[in-house]
Amino acid sequence: MRINKKRLKTSMLEIGNIGKDSTGGITRLAFSHEYKVAAWRLSQLMEDAGLEVKQDPLATIYGRRDGEDNTLPAIMFGSHLDTVKNGGLYDGLLGIMSGLEVINTLNDLGITTKNPLELVAFNAEEGSAMGGTFASRVIAGLISPDKSFLQDHLPDYNLRPEDLLASRRNLNEIKAFLELHIEQGRVLEGENIPIGIVTGIAGITRYQVEIIGEANHSGTTPMGLRKDALVTAAKLILEVENIARELGEPFVATIGTLEIKPGAVSIIPGEVELIIEIRDLDQTKIDVAGGQITDYLNQISKDIQIERIVNKTPVKTAPDIVNIIEKACKKLGISGRKIISGAGHDAKEIARKVPTGMIFVPSIAGKSHCPEEKTSWEDIYLGTEVLLETILSI
Amino acid sequence: MRINKKRLKTSMLEIGNIGKDSTGGITRLAFSHEYKVAAWRLSQLMEDAGLEVKQDPLATIYGRRDGEDNTLPAIMFGSHLDTVKNGGLYDGLLGIMSGLEVINTLNDLGITTKNPLELVAFNAEEGSAMGGTFASRVIAGLISPDKSFLQDHLPDYNLRPEDLLASRRNLNEIKAFLELHIEQGRVLEGENIPIGIVTGIAGITRYQVEIIGEANHSGTTPMGLRKDALVTAAKLILEVENIARELGEPFVATIGTLEIKPGAVSIIPGEVELIIEIRDLDQTKIDVAGGQITDYLNQISKDIQIERIVNKTPVKTAPDIVNIIEKACKKLGISGRKIISGAGHDAKEIARKVPTGMIFVPSIAGKSHCPEEKTSWEDIYLGTEVLLETILSI
Repeated sequence: MRINKKRLKTSMLEIGNIGKDSTGGITRLAFSHEYKVAAWRLSQLMEDAGLEVKQDPLATIYGRRDGEDNTLPAIMFGSHLDTVKNGGLYDGLLGIMSGLEVINTLNDLGITTKNPLELVAFNAEEGSAMGGTFASRVIAGLISPDKSFLQDHLPDYNLRPEDLLASRRNLNEIKAFLELHIEQGRVLEGENIPIGIVTGIAGITRYQVEIIGEANHSGTTPMGLRKDALVTAAKLILEVENIARELGEPFVATIGTLEIKPGAVSIIPGEVELIIEIRDLDQTKIDVAGGQITDYLNQISKDIQIERIVNKTPVKTAPDIVNIIEKACKKLGISGRKIISGAGHDAKEIARKVPTGMIFVPSIAGKSHCPEEKTSWEDIYLGTEVLLETILSI
Repeated sequence: MRINKKRLKTSMLEIGNIGKDSTGGITRLAFSHEYKVAAWRLSQLMEDAGLEVKQDPLATIYGRRDGEDNTLPAIMFGSHLDTVKNGGLYDGLLGIMSGLEVINTLNDLGITTKNPLELVAFNAEEGSAMGGTFASRVIAGLISPDKSFLQDHLPDYNLRPEDLLASRRNLNEIKAFLELHIEQGRVLEGENIPIGIVTGIAGITRYQVEIIGEANHSGTTPMGLRKDALVTAAKLILEVENIARELGEPFVATIGTLEIKPGAVSIIPGEVELIIEIRDLDQTKIDVAGGQITDYLNQISKDIQIERIVNKTPVKTAPDIVNIIEKACKKLGISGRKIISGAGHDAKEIARKVPTGMIFVPSIAGKSHCPEEKTSWEDIYLGTEVLLETILSI
C-alpha cells in the first residue's frame, strides 16, 4: 500500500475524539462548539498537508491542492464533519480523513495531479432543524434561503440568508465528486467484501396512513361487533412486508412509528396512525409499491386515509466513475461489489449537479449513529487506497 | 307499569347533571366537590322517600327501609355515584336512581317487604389511584388498609386507614345484592332486547409482552437481514384475534396499547411492548388462551418476554337470583336474555360474599364513559320495573 496507515489512524482518532464523552459516544453537532474545535484542528492538519484552506459562512471547510493545470475544474472529495447526538467515530469523518491521507500520500510520492484537488468537510449533514445534508444542498444551490422555516431557524445558528447565498459554489469548477463512507448496513459484511461501489442513492417516499376503527370497551364488545384499527394495521404491516420482499432487493419498506388512539389497555383501538417508508433506486418501483399498498388498503377497509408526505427521488452516481472505481479495485486486487446506498449522503446532493462516485466500506453489524458504530482499520486502509487510485484515474 | 316514569326521569337528571360542563360531559370524580354535592342532594331525596340515611367514612351512602321483620338480613340494591372524567349520565347513577324509584313505588303502593331494604350509592367505582370498585371492595372486606400504595394515596383523599376499617360491613346482614346497570356493550341493542340478566362478570387477565428485534437503519438494511419487532407484533395481533374468535363468545381479547422503540420513521423497530387483555367468564378458558398465546410467541420468536400482570378471576352471579330475574321478566312480559358482563362492577366485589344479581339495560351504540353514553328512557323504565319485581320476589 502507498498510504500511511499509522498517519491515517492517528489523524482519524485525533479529530474523531473531539466531542467524545465518558460513555464513548461522540457528539459533534452541526454549528456546535465541538464542531468548531474539530474544524479548527482539521484546518491545521490540512494546512500541514500543504492545502490552501478556506472556511465558508456555513463552516464547511475546503482545502485546495494545485494541479498541473489550475484552470481545469477540480476533483473534489470528502464528507461531513458533524455527527448525530451520541454517534460514532466513522460516519462522515472517514471520508474527510481518508481524503487528507490521499493528499499526504500524493505529497509523499511527489505526485501532482493534472486537475487541482479539493478536500471538503461539509457541515450539517446529519438531521437538524434545517433538514439533513444542509451544507451540501446549499453549496449545490438546492436551497433557497427565503423559505420561511429556514428564516425561522437560521438565527438559532447565528446565520443570515446572505450566508447561504455566499456559500453556494459554481459547480462548473468541479469535475467530479467522490465520497468514501461507511455502508451503515450489513451487505458488505455479510458477503465479506471490503469495497462497495455505489451505483445510486435510493429515493425515499413516505406515506402517512390513518386507519379509522371504532373505539369501544374491551370487555363489553364481542369480537364479532368490533372495528379494531390495530387489527387492520397488523394486516397492513404484514402486507407491506410481503410487497417489499416480492419486489426484491434493493427495495425496502419500513413502518417505524405507529400510534394508537386512544391507546388504553381496555379500549379497542379506534384509530391507528403510522408512517410507511419505502426506498429504492428506481422511482417506478417506488410508485408501483405505493400503488399496491394503496390498493390493499382500499381492499381491507373503507376508513383509511393515505397521504404521500415525502417524495425524494433516487439519484444515480456517474456510470463513468463507477467504472473507474471498479477498475481501481481490480488493479489493486481488492474485491468490490456494486451496491446502492439506502441512506442519504452529501454525495446525493452534489450528484444532482456534478458527476459523482461513492465508495463504501463495511459497517460491523451494520451499526451507525451510535457509539458501537465500527469499521475495521484494515477496511479503512483498503477504502482509502481505492479512493487514491480512483482520484489518480479520473 | 307501577313505577312513576316522570319522577324517575326528573331525579335521574337532577342528580346526574351535577358535574356537567358546558360541552355536555359529566365529571363527578370520587371524593370530588361534585361527588359531595351529589351525595348531599341524593341523601335528601332518600330521606324524602322515608329512608334512614347514613354516609360511611368513604362517602358511600346507605338508605334503609324497614321490613316486616327487621331482624332479617336486608336486600341491598344500588350502584355507584361517581363518574369517570368527562363521562355520561347513566353509568352507575341509573342503579341508584332506579333503586330510589323502587322505594318510592313501594311507598306509593303501601307495600312493606318482609326483609328490610337497603339502597346504596357506592363511591369510587371508577378507576382512581386506589384502583376501581374501591368502596365496594372495602365494604366487602377485600382491601387491607395497610397496603403501602394505599397508605401513599389515602392522604390525597383525606382518608386514614381507620376509615377503611370503619367502612367494612358485616355482610351477614345482607341477604342479596342487586345492581341495575347499563350494558356498556352492544349485545342487547343488536338483538333489540331491553333486559340483560347477568350470569357472571368476566375475569380479566393481562399479559405484558416485550418483543425484541434489532433496530437498524431503514435505508441500509435489506429485507432479508431484518429483525423487525413490529412485523412480529403484527403476526401476534392477528393470532390473538384468531384465538379469540375461535374460542367463541363471550371470550374477548384486545391489544389496546403498543409502543415501538425507538419509534422513528427511518429506524426498523427494535422493540415492541404491548399489552394483551383477555376476558371470559371461565378461568379455564382464559388460561387455555394464555397458553396458546405463549406457545405461539415461542414459535415465532425466541426474543419475546411475556408476563401476566393482571389476573382477576371471573365471578358468577347467584343462579337463584338469575332465575328470579328471568321469572320477573316473564311475568312482566318483558324480553330478557342471559348475558355476561365484560366490565367490572361493584356487584363483582359484593358477589364474592353475598348472593348477587345484576340487570343490564341496552347502551345505545355500546357507548359509555363519554358524553355520548345513552340508554333510552323506555329501557330505563323497563329495567326499573324488573328491579322492582325482582326485589318483591326475593
